Amino acid sequence: MKTDHHLELQALIADASAHLDNEAYQDWLDLFHDACVYRIVPQENIQQGLPGSVMLCETKKALSDRIVSLLKANTYNPHTSRHVTGPPRIVATEGDRIEAETNYALYQTNVDGASHLFAVGCYRDRIGRFDHQFKFVERLVVLDTFSIPTLLARPV
Amino acid sequence: MKTDHHLELQALIADASAHLDNEAYQDWLDLFHDACVYRIVPQENIQQGLPGSVMLCETKKALSDRIVSLLKANTYNPHTSRHVTGPPRIVATEGDRIEAETNYALYQTNVDGASHLFAVGCYRDRIGRFDHQFKFVERLVVLDTFSIPTLLARPV
Amino acid sequence: MKTDHHLELQALIADASAHLDNEAYQDWLDLFHDACVYRIVPQENIQQGLPGSVMLCETKKALSDRIVSLLKANTYNPHTSRHVTGPPRIVATEGDRIEAETNYALYQTNVDGASHLFAVGCYRDRIGRFDHQFKFVERLVVLDTFSIPTLLARPV
Repeated sequence: MKTDHHLELQALIADASAHLDNEAYQDWLDLFHDACVYRIVPQENIQQGLPGSVMLCETKKALSDRIVSLLKANTYNPHTSRHVTGPPRIVATEGDRIEAETNYALYQTNVDGASHLFAVGCYRDRIGRFDHQFKFVERLVVLDTFSIPTLLARPV
Repeated sequence: MKTDHHLELQALIADASAHLDNEAYQDWLDLFHDACVYRIVPQENIQQGLPGSVMLCETKKALSDRIVSLLKANTYNPHTSRHVTGPPRIVATEGDRIEAETNYALYQTNVDGASHLFAVGCYRDRIGRFDHQFKFVERLVVLDTFSIPTLLARPV
Repeated sequence: MKTDHHLELQALIADASAHLDNEAYQDWLDLFHDACVYRIVPQENIQQGLPGSVMLCETKKALSDRIVSLLKANTYNPHTSRHVTGPPRIVATEGDRIEAETNYALYQTNVDGASHLFAVGCYRDRIGRFDHQFKFVERLVVLDTFSIPTLLARPV
């Protein structure tokens, strides 16, 4: 894989974190290809081969609807989020298709300004190149922390 | 942006973390340009457009004084610090000037060897190139964790 | 240091995290050179120049034995692990030999799906190039969190 592609891939993953942290959901959606899948699956289910997801959007439209619902309809404890990710790890490449895995820690801060660890896990991404830009074709969010004390309202 | 510049930028940000963790404050100061600003601002103030800072040093001399005060005069709970940062995200470039944003988690470990999350947030850096070296022209530390249970004695 | 070598180094460190998180211990062992040292040392001992280690394997065979013991004999609280590392920081190079330091946060998730911070610290790695591949010659795991409430059963 070319070095500049590696840095672009790193930028894609960093952008995904930043857009969620900044609540720039439209920018976050723009990182996904039109035909995309977004899933949040507990680590436990993956280990046992169980299909259940905590969140499953099988089209970009479904993902977009989820965001609209989040912004307009859902009620949840107000907080800010902050993602800290490790280096992306390229696990497979085929032409312009890349599979990458990136560990994440997600922190939330409540309105009183207290921060806590919300969830940890791993992004398993399938990324394609469209019009000279990397986009997510599939983002599988492996959730180690499957017992979450509050509502999983937002994407991870 | 050239690839080697990207890696140098990443090194600058990693050095800033390491020098603070190693309490190598003079090395940390050397990462800043002579005309520099260092500010720690709660996320809440940024969202509401309020100017208040938790720490504000508008010259390198002020930043240096702060460090002297930290080393010679301040009394605070003894601890070690450890920064874990995500990938730097280039948000703007103009010639050799770069604006980058980097998420951080800062942990502290007390004298009993117990570690805890101290703060999370984002570095918003303005970086310039002087004598073939990147230096911080401005480091704005956005502090999600604005309710800090102990003294914010050291730089973040 | 060449850019592609830098990315390979980053991949080595990311692989080390991933293999431990995936409990792929043989893959993890394969990242070490035949003549290698693996040590976990509390930050406190390093600061005071004390030689004591929490874990010390002075050959790859010793490290391999440790893994066998972990898999076949040890009893410990079941959990999954997740490493989040910052960018590797090159602190010295000499030919193909590299010294790098990488901050880490290690999280554990118990069988109830609750995650917590287990330890933070810094990898101080000495890395060599053998048959066109980077391998660990020495991995010194500095452990800020030297008071660990449960057994340190696995490598960090």
